[in-house]
Amino acid sequence: MNNKPLPGRELTGFDDLLARFRAMTPKRRVVVVCPTDEPTRAVVEQCAAEGSAEFLLTVEADKAEMVREIADRHPGIEVFVADDIDAAAALGVQLVREGRGDVLMKGGINTDRLLRPVLNKEHGLLPPGQVLSHITLTKVPAYSKMLLFADAAVIPAPNDEQFRAMLRYTIDTEHALGNPCPRVALIHFTEKVNQKFEYTLTYADLIKEAAEGAFGECVVGGPMDVKTACDLHSAEIKGIDSPVAGKADVLIFPILTAANTFYKTVSFFCDAPMAGVLCGTTAPVVIPSRADHDISKLYSLALACLL
Amino acid sequence: MNNKPLPGRELTGFDDLLARFRAMTPKRRVVVVCPTDEPTRAVVEQCAAEGSAEFLLTVEADKAEMVREIADRHPGIEVFVADDIDAAAALGVQLVREGRGDVLMKGGINTDRLLRPVLNKEHGLLPPGQVLSHITLTKVPAYSKMLLFADAAVIPAPNDEQFRAMLRYTIDTEHALGNPCPRVALIHFTEKVNQKFEYTLTYADLIKEAAEGAFGECVVGGPMDVKTACDLHSAEIKGIDSPVAGKADVLIFPILTAANTFYKTVSFFCDAPMAGVLCGTTAPVVIPSRADHDISKLYSLALACLL
Repeated sequence: MNNKPLPGRELTGFDDLLARFRAMTPKRRVVVVCPTDEPTRAVVEQCAAEGSAEFLLTVEADKAEMVREIADRHPGIEVFVADDIDAAAALGVQLVREGRGDVLMKGGINTDRLLRPVLNKEHGLLPPGQVLSHITLTKVPAYSKMLLFADAAVIPAPNDEQFRAMLRYTIDTEHALGNPCPRVALIHFTEKVNQKFEYTLTYADLIKEAAEGAFGECVVGGPMDVKTACDLHSAEIKGIDSPVAGKADVLIFPILTAANTFYKTVSFFCDAPMAGVLCGTTAPVVIPSRADHDISKLYSLALACLL
Repeated sequence: MNNKPLPGRELTGFDDLLARFRAMTPKRRVVVVCPTDEPTRAVVEQCAAEGSAEFLLTVEADKAEMVREIADRHPGIEVFVADDIDAAAALGVQLVREGRGDVLMKGGINTDRLLRPVLNKEHGLLPPGQVLSHITLTKVPAYSKMLLFADAAVIPAPNDEQFRAMLRYTIDTEHALGNPCPRVALIHFTEKVNQKFEYTLTYADLIKEAAEGAFGECVVGGPMDVKTACDLHSAEIKGIDSPVAGKADVLIFPILTAANTFYKTVSFFCDAPMAGVLCGTTAPVVIPSRADHDISKLYSLALACLL
């Protein structure tokens, strides 16, 4: 995260996210690995045309021509050609390591294949001991706030240290987006803290650490379910007296399958757009899924640039 | 489950569920434990007035008067008074054991407290060795089919035997509701079968057993995520060639937190009504949550009566 002054007000939606992205000065420099697929190419061309970011593109030799055509249409875009797709990924990582790029973005390359050089111990982007995690920002029509949640992509079953990292990354992101004191819900099917219920003792520890200031300005509450976290009426019926209940800005899930279920459910059943970014790396990494809306690729890029 | 002939066509929605419930002959006899809360009382009075079910009500002595008033307004309703709330729960279970009731329904009593006599080894409703589980039926506007899923309430982390029971209960329910060959999705965040990914080897076994006929007429597929299970477009983009993808009737979740997340998300964010029933007991048991819509109590009762 950069030490930027807070924008002074909370984010109201994805239009607001895009407006802030377009207004950034100086522009962020985005390294895109293999923008050979149509959706990635479209995002690069749109942002280049608007001038909302600067681009460095890496590409494997046998697809260099189609990427050079993008640069031809948008003066200022630099193209770096590598022997093959793995070398193009390594080159993208290297450009970020050298400080020539602020954000790394995945194009027409498999996520695992891009992550190999990102996670390389000697030449990668993850400092030793740092936890890699993933945050997702969404706006569901039925809820007045934007929701940030973790981890729907990287950590299958967080340990205590990984839970702390997930809290740090989501809370830092909320701060960066202008929310001075995010309300964070630790998600579970129960409201009881009891050794019978996995994670709930860890949750109690995290809440104590948060109250002691370990994560900066925030309010952490739970365990509670997704409905209790977002629906004040439901929280009242259940008699839950927490400043987080019904007003959550952040949802922390105890297991990837639950976070993924939330992601896929609001994406498909609520047609909610998503922005997702990898955290813990020295620069934000954008790894959109093939099944995401095209607009989600643009939102993800905008979010990464604003961190 | 009863050996009733199939209704001959799939359920189209909750209106259809209610229509079938109201048309049942003979009427089911429903034992309601402590109908002392307003929502339960309203459901009992509505169904009694319509004649869609018969009722036996048990109640603790100090609230007997308010329950007798219900019976006064609806001739045919029987009231059984017990010393205290636990005795009223035990009496409700006993009425079902004696064959005087077909369905047990929770009223103004804590779920744990009702389940104690239900699960009592000598006098309860769960035969030895039988798996207790919970199924939920929902209709989300964005999806053309009704969805049945498990287990959002009872089994925290299913073992292989419990997975098999969840399949049996959901598939038997689909058959009972007129779906001759339900499509069942085994939910996961990955599509890969690999020992690195918990449950996926179990999933492969379950799919094999299903193909061999272990669960009757059905098609079981997975691992796949919720969006792949319900969105044909998303399945196509991912290149997933499964007769279940994009057309699921049933979702089996690998962990309660994920099922609960699905339940609470579609309930709150999609305003989807729910019907939930306990399975594995000798008679269906209805345990609505306080945070459910009132209409969900009626739908749950209707579903239980149709099993």
